Amino acid sequence: MAKDDEIAERSEFSTKDYKDPPPAPLFDPEELTKWSFYRAIIAEFIATLLFLYISVLTVIGYKSQTDPIKNADPCGGVGILGIAWAFGGMIFVLVYCTAGISGGHINPAVTFGLFLARKVSVIRAFMYMVAQCLGAICGVGLVKAFQKAYYERYGGGANELAAGYSKGVGLAAEIIGTFVLVYTVFSATDPKRSARDCHVPVLAPLPIGFAVFMVHLATIPITGTGINPARSLGAAVIYNKQKAWDDHWIFWVGPFTGAAIAAIYHQFILRAGAIKALGSFRSNA
Amino acid sequence: MAKDDEIAERSEFSTKDYKDPPPAPLFDPEELTKWSFYRAIIAEFIATLLFLYISVLTVIGYKSQTDPIKNADPCGGVGILGIAWAFGGMIFVLVYCTAGISGGHINPAVTFGLFLARKVSVIRAFMYMVAQCLGAICGVGLVKAFQKAYYERYGGGANELAAGYSKGVGLAAEIIGTFVLVYTVFSATDPKRSARDCHVPVLAPLPIGFAVFMVHLATIPITGTGINPARSLGAAVIYNKQKAWDDHWIFWVGPFTGAAIAAIYHQFILRAGAIKALGSFRSNA
Amino acid sequence: MAKDDEIAERSEFSTKDYKDPPPAPLFDPEELTKWSFYRAIIAEFIATLLFLYISVLTVIGYKSQTDPIKNADPCGGVGILGIAWAFGGMIFVLVYCTAGISGGHINPAVTFGLFLARKVSVIRAFMYMVAQCLGAICGVGLVKAFQKAYYERYGGGANELAAGYSKGVGLAAEIIGTFVLVYTVFSATDPKRSARDCHVPVLAPLPIGFAVFMVHLATIPITGTGINPARSLGAAVIYNKQKAWDDHWIFWVGPFTGAAIAAIYHQFILRAGAIKALGSFRSNA
Amino acid sequence: MAKDDEIAERSEFSTKDYKDPPPAPLFDPEELTKWSFYRAIIAEFIATLLFLYISVLTVIGYKSQTDPIKNADPCGGVGILGIAWAFGGMIFVLVYCTAGISGGHINPAVTFGLFLARKVSVIRAFMYMVAQCLGAICGVGLVKAFQKAYYERYGGGANELAAGYSKGVGLAAEIIGTFVLVYTVFSATDPKRSARDCHVPVLAPLPIGFAVFMVHLATIPITGTGINPARSLGAAVIYNKQKAWDDHWIFWVGPFTGAAIAAIYHQFILRAGAIKALGSFRSNA
Repeated sequence: MAKDDEIAERSEFSTKDYKDPPPAPLFDPEELTKWSFYRAIIAEFIATLLFLYISVLTVIGYKSQTDPIKNADPCGGVGILGIAWAFGGMIFVLVYCTAGISGGHINPAVTFGLFLARKVSVIRAFMYMVAQCLGAICGVGLVKAFQKAYYERYGGGANELAAGYSKGVGLAAEIIGTFVLVYTVFSATDPKRSARDCHVPVLAPLPIGFAVFMVHLATIPITGTGINPARSLGAAVIYNKQKAWDDHWIFWVGPFTGAAIAAIYHQFILRAGAIKALGSFRSNA
Repeated sequence: MAKDDEIAERSEFSTKDYKDPPPAPLFDPEELTKWSFYRAIIAEFIATLLFLYISVLTVIGYKSQTDPIKNADPCGGVGILGIAWAFGGMIFVLVYCTAGISGGHINPAVTFGLFLARKVSVIRAFMYMVAQCLGAICGVGLVKAFQKAYYERYGGGANELAAGYSKGVGLAAEIIGTFVLVYTVFSATDPKRSARDCHVPVLAPLPIGFAVFMVHLATIPITGTGINPARSLGAAVIYNKQKAWDDHWIFWVGPFTGAAIAAIYHQFILRAGAIKALGSFRSNA
Repeated sequence: MAKDDEIAERSEFSTKDYKDPPPAPLFDPEELTKWSFYRAIIAEFIATLLFLYISVLTVIGYKSQTDPIKNADPCGGVGILGIAWAFGGMIFVLVYCTAGISGGHINPAVTFGLFLARKVSVIRAFMYMVAQCLGAICGVGLVKAFQKAYYERYGGGANELAAGYSKGVGLAAEIIGTFVLVYTVFSATDPKRSARDCHVPVLAPLPIGFAVFMVHLATIPITGTGINPARSLGAAVIYNKQKAWDDHWIFWVGPFTGAAIAAIYHQFILRAGAIKALGSFRSNA
Repeated sequence: MAKDDEIAERSEFSTKDYKDPPPAPLFDPEELTKWSFYRAIIAEFIATLLFLYISVLTVIGYKSQTDPIKNADPCGGVGILGIAWAFGGMIFVLVYCTAGISGGHINPAVTFGLFLARKVSVIRAFMYMVAQCLGAICGVGLVKAFQKAYYERYGGGANELAAGYSKGVGLAAEIIGTFVLVYTVFSATDPKRSARDCHVPVLAPLPIGFAVFMVHLATIPITGTGINPARSLGAAVIYNKQKAWDDHWIFWVGPFTGAAIAAIYHQFILRAGAIKALGSFRSNA
């Protein structure tokens, strides 16, 4: 294993066996003329809608099945573990389904990270984010339409800071959680990796889904776990209570900051962008 | 990632690197002369039998182990989470086992969706559905034979609308749930995908199983989760109580509608069937 | 998907693109002279030891952590779901680790099924079973050595028929459960499958592990789930109580019968052994 | 399956179809001049930091959500099962992300085992271990910074011997647990395996993560499960209570011993290092 990176290094500086795609243009008017662009936006909309529908329905169903006021069985629902699975598992399924259509972002923070790394144009990034936010609102709206009373009573799936945690802690938890997710996304879609591991297949959606699952296990007690501004916005718009809006900025600033750090970490440390000039100099010597 | 679809687009209109199989004929008398046809029907029968046997046995076992009347430990069973795993995990295992024999449908709604997309002939679709329904009845029958008293007492694994939900909500939940499943099936078996992702292997049964797992997490509190008419019919026939039959139409109309929407979404939006003519015109220009 | 089997059929009868390995000789004295033979036996011994060590330790730990007599938290352990994961997950890991060394049986019923299908010689089958049984005894012995008092108090991980179930039901549950497992093993290791799905990789250990997980979810309430005679023998020998020995025959007759049915189903129905003569006749016509 | 090892044997002694990388030099001053070396150390530091952050945060969050003193719901957290998932799932994600950068050790015991098998130089091994330990301390430090009161009250995620277990049992549990993990690492990264199973892809991080998950299911009740000296050290340094330090040697001696046994088992029994001379003699005859 440890030898791998030497081989990688060698291939990086001399006999490159992978092709870095050229950075996406900041503005690419041509993509607006293609059906694949609109299809990708539709796919992001539908995927984010399904993501929020399944996950928030799981949250509300769990809370209703274990409500002590209704003398419910405290163990009768899917549990916090089931909720974490719902978020992580849906991301696995949906990234798998949409990877070939839109890249499978389903999350404005992921789109932002990939934009910073010049994988998507600014127009595409903006349109994806709009589609994701609209999809999230519609998904949570469906849940509310299905069970209005329960939806209001059980917190609407909104992200809020739990009692006893400062805003700083909530923000930091969102930053690190999103870093875990976006770092995994970068690792899974690195063209260098695909070249090197040609016989070690890259089932990329599975580790991405697991990253979401893991972060939920850890930070549900703190913020309910956002790490996805569309998810937080969708629930806040439909739930529309003071508390959800008060903390709402955390669920945009945190994920975007975490995604930016992950993009920097991947591009400058792991891909060694900062020392490439030096490296190519050395390998020529 | 975002570049993928441009490459895909190009390959779609000009240098196609994948082969769309020709649509299955509506009637294909020749397939009736082949052992592989009958073998596929047997495989669907056995797979649906095993699916219902394992999943309904898990439901009954859970309810019996946590029954407060028997002073049972409320946490002593596998939990709702375990039930969701039983349904999703069995679909993963059985799709894996039967994919090469019958295509691994194990669900009349999946067969219906693939029939609409012209992947199977009308005869094959009909015979699969019959085999699936008979298999489901036999599977639930085995569970009842094994533990008659428990089976009756704990609801027989039948799909029913939970108290407090309207028929419309139940129907909508079944439609969206089946949409998630059949959309995943289409994504996993798209020949375009296989061509594009030749080095990204397609472990198709895993996301299909996870889609079933996810939908169960979300909609067990509403309808018990059907999204599979054979599963609902098998339990209704063996349990045979008024309530199960009253709502039974939901578990046929919902899944078939959801499968049809998924087929339309995949064929017309994602595969761009509707604008193909235009597209091929543009790429020739 | 449905088209696959026609292609498969064609390849089976005319342009075979896969090679059926020749049936293993019943007696193969030459393999006794090879280190790989003894290495395989050692690997089966160690794998079965680790399997029983981890799984029975999980069972005892769960029961001790949730014992109401000790005023323990009823939800404080890993749950029945965690126990099912321990059995299924260990089979996944160990089949992955030993597949290239011994074939990754770790279960006399799997060895028996593969022997019936002529994949292993009679000497190898016998030696594997001996190694598996000894490994299982040592694995459970370790658990008892680590926590003698708990081990005795919490049932020693032995397979017993639960109160209220007849011997016939227990036997049938073991037969069907082992059928699910061995059917999955045959599907995962079918050379025809590998040839056909050359670009659809076969991560065989995962569905095999999931099959074990699923069967445990369903039949822990009935028999504690054997489907592995070595597992049942190891626990019975170390626990050594009357009740465990009284039902012990079920956990040999059941799994061996289930494995035999799976071998017959796979070889005669799915691989169409019975009609091959007819088939080759037809394709020549 | 059973035929595999004969093919393997043949290829081992005559027509080798895989290339054993040469053993890593004990001292390799040249690697100190490469960016890939420092990048690998940074990646190990960050990965171990994230591992401890997510897993210890999950432990503390679970204990706070189910604390009976706070009248909390005893089933309200992710459960011991969720904690086991957090440890195993994070190892899956992080090995996946760092495999191509540093080899994905994230554990001094893994580094030690690979060093014994001459996969890494002594300098690299030492620097990895330092990075892992520092990363673990920082990761647990973040958890403490986020929730100081809870962190102290709920045991700080430190590994301690549970009441009623002797030091010998704890040590043995750590040895066997680490053996399971390092044995899986060796199996997953065996170059012989990759050659033989070229069409059976090796999704190595998944079984490695599952091995960690399994060991946690089994030994959380005994030692809280170390099998990773960096994990134990990080929690002990930040928690810094007498009890955690008293047992601390167990979590270094146990994992290093287990890793050494796994290295010996893999190199001498499974790879047949000890009889290679004899074997090559026989195949030449």
